[in-house]
Amino acid sequence: MAGWDNGGMTDNHSPVTHLTDEQSLDLLATKTFGRLVVHRKNDIDLFPLNYIVHDGKILFRTAEGTKLFSLNLNDDVLFEVDNVEQTSEDTGEAWSVIVKGTARILKDTTEIHAADEAPLKPWLPTLKYNYVVITPNEDGLSGRKFNLGEEPERY
Amino acid sequence: MAGWDNGGMTDNHSPVTHLTDEQSLDLLATKTFGRLVVHRKNDIDLFPLNYIVHDGKILFRTAEGTKLFSLNLNDDVLFEVDNVEQTSEDTGEAWSVIVKGTARILKDTTEIHAADEAPLKPWLPTLKYNYVVITPNEDGLSGRKFNLGEEPERY
Repeated sequence: MAGWDNGGMTDNHSPVTHLTDEQSLDLLATKTFGRLVVHRKNDIDLFPLNYIVHDGKILFRTAEGTKLFSLNLNDDVLFEVDNVEQTSEDTGEAWSVIVKGTARILKDTTEIHAADEAPLKPWLPTLKYNYVVITPNEDGLSGRKFNLGEEPERY
Repeated sequence: MAGWDNGGMTDNHSPVTHLTDEQSLDLLATKTFGRLVVHRKNDIDLFPLNYIVHDGKILFRTAEGTKLFSLNLNDDVLFEVDNVEQTSEDTGEAWSVIVKGTARILKDTTEIHAADEAPLKPWLPTLKYNYVVITPNEDGLSGRKFNLGEEPERY
């Protein structure tokens, strides 16, 4: 299970709330910027990118390069989106949603045309020819909400 | 090499600028919120957390839990911090700094006392007993700056 460490607290007073899959997907849909983590053998890499949620999946575009090379070697990926809102110096709210899933480059023309209809807006002014879709694993969604605050006194 | 995919562009007009180690550390020091990626065997996990840069290293605190368990099994970790600033709907600037390094739990009393002096402020109101320090590998720093903009027309 991924997320902020909640210090082993599991009662209702925990500063960490576990989100349902629906809540997690809803939060994912509010943002367009996330982080893709790929791995091969013992090497891990992370790529910030723009995405959209499309039919419960993560869709993004990429040019050929390191990212696709890694995806070609390992299709099990982790994708993360988070948000931090401080309401004062010491308090605030944050959330993080993690998607563990399988990445696949769209090859089928019908799929690519369908993806072209999606409101996916890349920010980097480079040509991006490939669509990649991440399909969450069963139980692959993991969302948490955090109430930020002062650490309690040690006792 | 990690970072946004630059589409194979390497000339001066590239929307991606590679940063020096010093620039990368300077940017890291402007933020307090990052993401730790740990792995064991084929499983990857990501943990958002608060950190500070201390003597060119990443310092954070954690309670016992999943995070430390993973660190105990695999001490090679990836840490990422990023920032996106949109100046209009279509333009803006972003950066991402990735640190690949070795994580170590502080055990030595002198080290722990020194860490106690660091201005590290956890946001989650849970007791965090352990300090963890990430020492960057040689060539383990990788920073990039991105000029966001419209994708060029395909030709």
